[in-house]
Amino acid sequence: MVTELDRKFLDAAYEEAQLGLSEGGIPIGSVLVRNGEIIGRGHNRRVQKGDPILHGEMDAIQNAGRQRTYKDVTCYTTLSPCMMCTGTIIQFGITRVVVAESKNFKGFQDVLSLAGVDVVDYHDERCEHMMADFIEKHPQLWNEDIGE
Amino acid sequence: MVTELDRKFLDAAYEEAQLGLSEGGIPIGSVLVRNGEIIGRGHNRRVQKGDPILHGEMDAIQNAGRQRTYKDVTCYTTLSPCMMCTGTIIQFGITRVVVAESKNFKGFQDVLSLAGVDVVDYHDERCEHMMADFIEKHPQLWNEDIGE
Repeated sequence: MVTELDRKFLDAAYEEAQLGLSEGGIPIGSVLVRNGEIIGRGHNRRVQKGDPILHGEMDAIQNAGRQRTYKDVTCYTTLSPCMMCTGTIIQFGITRVVVAESKNFKGFQDVLSLAGVDVVDYHDERCEHMMADFIEKHPQLWNEDIGE
Repeated sequence: MVTELDRKFLDAAYEEAQLGLSEGGIPIGSVLVRNGEIIGRGHNRRVQKGDPILHGEMDAIQNAGRQRTYKDVTCYTTLSPCMMCTGTIIQFGITRVVVAESKNFKGFQDVLSLAGVDVVDYHDERCEHMMADFIEKHPQLWNEDIGE
């Protein structure tokens, strides 16, 4: 069962993904939350900026700017984090990750858990459909983004 | 013993670190090399851009832009990669990492090796001194950059 707060922030991550899609980009969105407030939001901008490191999570972290600590920060993301984003979450000390879905990309939730990060996966059908649809239409771009 | 080519590209990474220092930033530099040519160069720009994700390696990858593959790319860096950069190197499929030094920050060379990345650590004294000097003068900034 999705809590009301998690639902609200997953919606915000979904809005970011949709914004990315409307810009011609890969629809993956993320928000960072502290004390019930969004401190950074972003979406994959590989296409828009020609930048391979700007996955949704990275863009949100970049947009949040310099932070003293991430111990009290939750990262919401529409798709299970890749190894770049996983390493970043661990390095920065983000303690909780809420994933909308992992059907289209399994990611490295086991690595996050091993590092002590609390991970929740909501298996959200709306995000599953959004990503599956994009991958079907743009397989080459998707493979580029996940390094395959 | 440092090979002539590795020396040349470690020098380029060192120049990037010095450029960062002259900008008031954290002196860590990196270059990406394919077939003996630099395809991307960068340095830590946390201070300069207020951006926590722009470690030297990330900045070099960003500046190289979108690449079809990283299988034939070597990443040179003045300091052993943190977990963000380690995850990124693994995710992007970079196959070789040449580290100038790991005395000031051990990094995660074991994780890189486990993932099949070829890692060389030259224990370069010039870079050891550069970083030790910076950490001594700016301990707070350094701790922020490594998430401590």
